[in-house]
Amino acid sequence: MAERRTAIATVCLSGTLEDKLAAASSAGFDGVEIFENDLLASRLSPAGIRRHCADLGLSIDLYQPFRDFEAVPPELLRANLRRAERKLDLMAELGTGTILVCSSVSPDAVDDDELAAEHLHALAELAAERGMRIAYEALAWGRFVNTYQRSWRIVRRAAHPALGLCLDSFHILSVGGDPAAIRTIPGEKIFFVQLADAPRLAMDVLQWSRHHRLFPGQGEFDLTAFTGHVLATGYRGPLSLEVFNDVFRQADPRLTAVDAMRSLLALRESLGLAELPEAPALHGHAFAELAAPAGEDVGKVLAGLGFTVAGHHRTKPVQLWAQNGARVLVNKTGERTAIAVDSEDPGRSARRAEAYLAQPLRRGREAVAAPDSTELFFCGGDDWLADFEPAGEAGRTAGITGIDHVALTQPFDQFEEAALFYRSVLGLRLDPVVEFAAPFGLVRSRAAAHQGVRLTLDTALVRRGEWAPAVREPQHIAFATGDAIASAKAMRALGAPLLDIPGNYYDDLEARLDLDPGLLAELRAQSVLYDRDEHGEFLHFYTELAGERVFFEVVQRIGGYRGYGVANAPIRMAAHRDRRLNGR
Amino acid sequence: MAERRTAIATVCLSGTLEDKLAAASSAGFDGVEIFENDLLASRLSPAGIRRHCADLGLSIDLYQPFRDFEAVPPELLRANLRRAERKLDLMAELGTGTILVCSSVSPDAVDDDELAAEHLHALAELAAERGMRIAYEALAWGRFVNTYQRSWRIVRRAAHPALGLCLDSFHILSVGGDPAAIRTIPGEKIFFVQLADAPRLAMDVLQWSRHHRLFPGQGEFDLTAFTGHVLATGYRGPLSLEVFNDVFRQADPRLTAVDAMRSLLALRESLGLAELPEAPALHGHAFAELAAPAGEDVGKVLAGLGFTVAGHHRTKPVQLWAQNGARVLVNKTGERTAIAVDSEDPGRSARRAEAYLAQPLRRGREAVAAPDSTELFFCGGDDWLADFEPAGEAGRTAGITGIDHVALTQPFDQFEEAALFYRSVLGLRLDPVVEFAAPFGLVRSRAAAHQGVRLTLDTALVRRGEWAPAVREPQHIAFATGDAIASAKAMRALGAPLLDIPGNYYDDLEARLDLDPGLLAELRAQSVLYDRDEHGEFLHFYTELAGERVFFEVVQRIGGYRGYGVANAPIRMAAHRDRRLNGR
Repeated sequence: MAERRTAIATVCLSGTLEDKLAAASSAGFDGVEIFENDLLASRLSPAGIRRHCADLGLSIDLYQPFRDFEAVPPELLRANLRRAERKLDLMAELGTGTILVCSSVSPDAVDDDELAAEHLHALAELAAERGMRIAYEALAWGRFVNTYQRSWRIVRRAAHPALGLCLDSFHILSVGGDPAAIRTIPGEKIFFVQLADAPRLAMDVLQWSRHHRLFPGQGEFDLTAFTGHVLATGYRGPLSLEVFNDVFRQADPRLTAVDAMRSLLALRESLGLAELPEAPALHGHAFAELAAPAGEDVGKVLAGLGFTVAGHHRTKPVQLWAQNGARVLVNKTGERTAIAVDSEDPGRSARRAEAYLAQPLRRGREAVAAPDSTELFFCGGDDWLADFEPAGEAGRTAGITGIDHVALTQPFDQFEEAALFYRSVLGLRLDPVVEFAAPFGLVRSRAAAHQGVRLTLDTALVRRGEWAPAVREPQHIAFATGDAIASAKAMRALGAPLLDIPGNYYDDLEARLDLDPGLLAELRAQSVLYDRDEHGEFLHFYTELAGERVFFEVVQRIGGYRGYGVANAPIRMAAHRDRRLNGR
Repeated sequence: MAERRTAIATVCLSGTLEDKLAAASSAGFDGVEIFENDLLASRLSPAGIRRHCADLGLSIDLYQPFRDFEAVPPELLRANLRRAERKLDLMAELGTGTILVCSSVSPDAVDDDELAAEHLHALAELAAERGMRIAYEALAWGRFVNTYQRSWRIVRRAAHPALGLCLDSFHILSVGGDPAAIRTIPGEKIFFVQLADAPRLAMDVLQWSRHHRLFPGQGEFDLTAFTGHVLATGYRGPLSLEVFNDVFRQADPRLTAVDAMRSLLALRESLGLAELPEAPALHGHAFAELAAPAGEDVGKVLAGLGFTVAGHHRTKPVQLWAQNGARVLVNKTGERTAIAVDSEDPGRSARRAEAYLAQPLRRGREAVAAPDSTELFFCGGDDWLADFEPAGEAGRTAGITGIDHVALTQPFDQFEEAALFYRSVLGLRLDPVVEFAAPFGLVRSRAAAHQGVRLTLDTALVRRGEWAPAVREPQHIAFATGDAIASAKAMRALGAPLLDIPGNYYDDLEARLDLDPGLLAELRAQSVLYDRDEHGEFLHFYTELAGERVFFEVVQRIGGYRGYGVANAPIRMAAHRDRRLNGR
């Protein structure tokens, strides 16, 4: 963040301390918080860690946590001060000047701010002797001190220059605290700031904190407002990420660290502090590209949907299939999948993506790699058609007008990163995360959309064993039509292998909804699924699988329906399973 | 359950409806509850499902759920009755006589038991016309009706012979309901009973219910008492399992169904209704067998620990290593791992295991397969030594007296099943589940112990990506010693490759605990780890890896310490990682 230092707590990352430090350095962080358990398990001595960090260009901005210190009986205070001295000695070797002290959760602590202030004053004396500082943090589940307003009262009362606050967005926002009063704290008494986002979950706040935190912009907290309050105080320390997350704990730390840095870049942009290229306006999807080694199967299905071959790539075994505004590339090398957006300024789109740490690709056109290696192209109108030798196939059509959305199956480890990536790089708006029970386990899904570009990100939430004959990493493109029933009839006439939907589904629609009997009969006859929300209705149908992984959907949005028919996804999944087991 | 019918809700199992029915039938269930979403997604018509179940020997005992019916305004009641009629028609085709109606969570419902009773009476009339019945269930999160006492008041008030109760143990026990009052309900008014266990979790009860239920005996609810109350009423219907669980939803349904049936067998035994062979007394571990294709490495480490070769298997490439009461088999074919317990009656142990649905193995000795395919042998004293040609190696020793415990890494999908298996087959007592943050992700661990046999079951809670250089499926045996420090010294003298523990760990011990400085210096010098609980102390140390997966631990229990040093496991894991990256 330009003049603002960035840091990351080692607890955010997977691996040994050395794995974590290498990842933080390589993602460009200025400093780290050393989490005590990472140090304890490290074969490097504190002095060795100091040297190693210096070699990596990392400062050590904080040592943490020190727990259950204040407001205890005298003999326990003596033991706690002894314990603290050991840790301050360690910090001297480590070369770090600030230690995080969490408000006590101990049954030995008493509810006495005066005593807490007195004890913290004694601790601050020990720190001051060594030129160090104590950053006192109110845990959301602190036994008595559980708001920053109360930790600030105690710090004021202690009135020691080596004692200040640590503010952690999770502890404040998770319990509905109002961060606005942060502005009343002098910036020089805020010794450290930790940022974490989180989804809103109805669960024990300690478990929520220890397992489900996210990087800023990935959850539902307003980190922009929080950080705005912090910066308004004149706080000059680093903005540091402290995110306890079960998935990040086991994911490649090099990827997590990049995701983390991207979250700080997006936060900075949201605060108006960015020097990033602005997101150009988009004009919908330019094309979607499928990896289809069995290209003939996919071609046959596309032909059945009313597509025709509109061109052949001049240098690669890639066919362009088109129907009005819908363009699909079928790549027979089966090496890659790609999505392409129509950007007002493809060059600026690419520069923005690279500023957001996307890896640029050499593809002749502006393109970068998304977190899951999907290739993301930025096209300007139809300029990209020049790469194709036009084919003069006759213009069949079955009513498809364009690409409605592309469903991107994400690796479990990259789900949160992908949402943040598409939001920040393309400027898409994220819908809330949806989870649903599918035949082979829970699926998590999140839509991202803006200016005619719609993506859905999907991942299997738990899938570990050998079982689960779901379609693995499906490639799924949904086309738009103005009349789903008519399109389905036309496609059947063209020989499209549309997916049969069980009659039980329609019996249930009939029982639940007051649908027009004529419409219901048409839906049933054509195997078209139905959904509605407060804005409108949704009619959609699927093809069978072409090869192992590819299928298509055709959707009709009526009157401003905003969803993606997620409630019907389990029906589709079971039908695909049935076809594979029993069909053909 | 002899004269008691067993059933399972299809929602417990993964797959399509046909996958689920096949699994339930093959595990020996008498009937099923059909979960509506499974039916909607099925290509079989209701009549087809009826025929299919009949072919599989399964009755359809319940159709479920019907939601948000009662205590609503008149026009909504009309719509709900219409909806109910469609479902009752469907049930006629399906050939099932009972439908589950959950207490309403709708914002349209009002708090009026009289009105609820009136509406349920009308619904019961519709059911009675078809010879069917309504089983009304109070959801723990029902808008107004959220206890079985209240649903029972409403059912009494409605006073219709076709209206009765469904009792679900989760909805009653999760919110601390007292099940004893169930005894006041006439058995014939209890139309259906659903059993589910769960771990105690501090979270929203609806999320808890939908994601974390377990089969009886796998969680922390007292299902024995609950079922005892139910049976005391004279209830004659099936005992049915309804378990929503994220892991079971994606696991092989054939294994889950066996696990489910085993839970009902154990429940029956706990109620004193079993005809199962009683668990014979155990006298500790007989041996543990390692799959060690690199047998030489393992042998070298065992020799360093003071073991000697005590025999060679008469027909297989298996070495017997021994030191006092500790016996380890090293199987160079690398095909199997096994554990063996010393049973008072090996034949009865095996019969009991088979009664508990364990697959018998033809191994010359009494043996069965555990859920993860570990082979479980039942030995009678030292009878099994006859399989080995004695070797006359000289009697080294380094103070090991026996096997303290064997750590069994479980497949994620079989973790709960394994705990129930060892508890029911061997009569072990289960400790609570422990979860801890290890360097490469969360680990879940649970100990099972009794009569000198101790097992720990471990699984990586989230581990999905390519990252995570943890030891995969470690084979880990812990030996007992009376003096860990002396054993460590003796083993170092014998050349054992003991795992170095970082100095930072000992600095922290020193800061935290008031340990005797002499002891601390010895621990540090010998790389011995330390733990304590309210009963005593624990000293333990590890070897480096022998090959890719095998390592050993040596433990000293002082004064009744009951744990397994879990707090130190992350230190061990990081050290193993370091040795593999940087060592040798």
